[in-house]
Amino acid sequence: MDLTCPIPRQTSPQVLLAHGGGGKLMQDLIDKMFGATFGQTCTGHDAAQLMAPAGDLAFTTDSYVVQPLFFPGGDIGKLAVYGTVNDLAMAGAKPLYLSVGFILEEGLPMETLWQVVHSLAAAAQTVGVQIVTGDTKVVERGKGDGIFINTSGIGTIASPTKIYPGAIQPGDAILVSGDLGRHGIAIMAQREGLALETTIESDCAPLVQPVQDLLTAGIEVHCLRDVTRGGLAAVLNELAIAAGYQFQLDEKQIPITEAVRGACEIFGFDPLHIANEGCFVAIVPPEQAAQSREILQTHQPTAEIIGRVTDIACPGEQLAIAPVIFENSFGVTRILERLSGEQLPRIC
Amino acid sequence: MDLTCPIPRQTSPQVLLAHGGGGKLMQDLIDKMFGATFGQTCTGHDAAQLMAPAGDLAFTTDSYVVQPLFFPGGDIGKLAVYGTVNDLAMAGAKPLYLSVGFILEEGLPMETLWQVVHSLAAAAQTVGVQIVTGDTKVVERGKGDGIFINTSGIGTIASPTKIYPGAIQPGDAILVSGDLGRHGIAIMAQREGLALETTIESDCAPLVQPVQDLLTAGIEVHCLRDVTRGGLAAVLNELAIAAGYQFQLDEKQIPITEAVRGACEIFGFDPLHIANEGCFVAIVPPEQAAQSREILQTHQPTAEIIGRVTDIACPGEQLAIAPVIFENSFGVTRILERLSGEQLPRIC
Repeated sequence: MDLTCPIPRQTSPQVLLAHGGGGKLMQDLIDKMFGATFGQTCTGHDAAQLMAPAGDLAFTTDSYVVQPLFFPGGDIGKLAVYGTVNDLAMAGAKPLYLSVGFILEEGLPMETLWQVVHSLAAAAQTVGVQIVTGDTKVVERGKGDGIFINTSGIGTIASPTKIYPGAIQPGDAILVSGDLGRHGIAIMAQREGLALETTIESDCAPLVQPVQDLLTAGIEVHCLRDVTRGGLAAVLNELAIAAGYQFQLDEKQIPITEAVRGACEIFGFDPLHIANEGCFVAIVPPEQAAQSREILQTHQPTAEIIGRVTDIACPGEQLAIAPVIFENSFGVTRILERLSGEQLPRIC
Repeated sequence: MDLTCPIPRQTSPQVLLAHGGGGKLMQDLIDKMFGATFGQTCTGHDAAQLMAPAGDLAFTTDSYVVQPLFFPGGDIGKLAVYGTVNDLAMAGAKPLYLSVGFILEEGLPMETLWQVVHSLAAAAQTVGVQIVTGDTKVVERGKGDGIFINTSGIGTIASPTKIYPGAIQPGDAILVSGDLGRHGIAIMAQREGLALETTIESDCAPLVQPVQDLLTAGIEVHCLRDVTRGGLAAVLNELAIAAGYQFQLDEKQIPITEAVRGACEIFGFDPLHIANEGCFVAIVPPEQAAQSREILQTHQPTAEIIGRVTDIACPGEQLAIAPVIFENSFGVTRILERLSGEQLPRIC
């Protein structure tokens, strides 16, 4: 990947419908932008032909529609790589290959597309994943919103046991890999043009290495989930229902920075409902909880043990048992509900 | 897949931003629509965990932005399956797994989404490909166009030799698997509300079986390419440049129905620039051309041998040698140029 590749002079300053039309202009875009940045592997044919990896596969897809396209700590290109790579990591997989599909709006400045493409390539290089195939469509002005990106990813599963909600056991410890709320607040502050006291940067980051470190250390990881849309509340409710056991949390252990708390007060958000892009929940046997925290803290010092899986059956959210509760030291409980509606759209 | 699954009564009649928000409404959509239609495999976790297929992999991605969403002979759901499956088939691969990413516009009638989802599931069932993972995003009204779909596909390569432009040899025969122009004309007629004398239906169809039949019969397939955006002109120009040899065509052998010819005259289109969704170019050794035509004609009687690869070097389109020419029986030649701009946007 040549990340210094300049914009070729003959390129149109804006994206035209013809850049998605299958003719010379599209071929130019593919050769001069994608070929020059991602390498020729992704431009030669309809489907990439790849060596079969050893072991079972993980396969995932995500579309990215974040607004604004650029925000403190990241942009849609970086997000499109790390978001999908993180979904693979959550299955205990080592990411190998990515596809990239762009849906561009006619009139998009070509300069903006270059910036996003470079950021995407740099992020792929950082995590060591290859962009092997792609697609570009252009829609008329007013029928899209600048850039939408889909990335799909293939990884090879590195975990000796299946990492999924079905492996969650009563007694398991629940950890988060870092402090919550930074991505959502970064987007919101940028969107509203608010200058907070301190600029809060998105936590947008790859989660491959912390997961690999847990596995390498012999942690018997039962379940992993990145804390994205819907925030911690949505993720834990889903996992508790899928596992069939109530989760119990210690609210004061949940890591949230003062800056995020302050911004949440201004915006009227609950940090537990806010999306993150570089934070995950890990569910591990209780006797490995302290070691897991230690490993996670080498990547993000705010990682913490926040609760445990109870033996109270929780067959679904329609019933009397709440999937996720807080319990304080006086035994007083409070339900952690997930939002029904939409708090903050176009976050990823 | 339960294709008769009715719309659950409690579902909102329109897509809301909250359907992409990560909360209960999104989970409902996933469970009641995608889970019920595609099977539970695709709803449980961030990444699908799959048995590694034997042999090398083919991997491809395509986004679908066609307007209108429904057209004679197909719809965006069917197209999103066959289009991606066909890209895999063009690498000589047997399609195994698909991912599906929706970008929905707020306000989309839920009924429309159901129709598309059912069509998508039915098409997947027809070709025997499993939908294993998915994603849904919702953008505000006026920031999308109803439904955009990305599908990415994984297949296992079934061909003994690598099928790609580099395998094309001087003397090779060039075939098309069927008559050209039906998809583009079907879209255009629908979009313009034109009642043609005969309704022309899109050729939207899976191409897996004809390719498998060529391979099973021992045809040494050098290259395959589906004739989509940019039509035959774009596809042959790209292949000739990639192969490095001039292609020579016999214009009267190129199969185009009278109905398509007539419609092209009305719209002012050249059928060789029009996109297809169920037609491919096959390049095979000359001694296997007749047998290949016979095999292709069992699927589509209009399949034909249309030309040959010359030994004239053609290193690129900037030079004096045209990549693709017609030659008639009097030795008179004419260049088949591809369009620079956009003839018919939002075709796939």
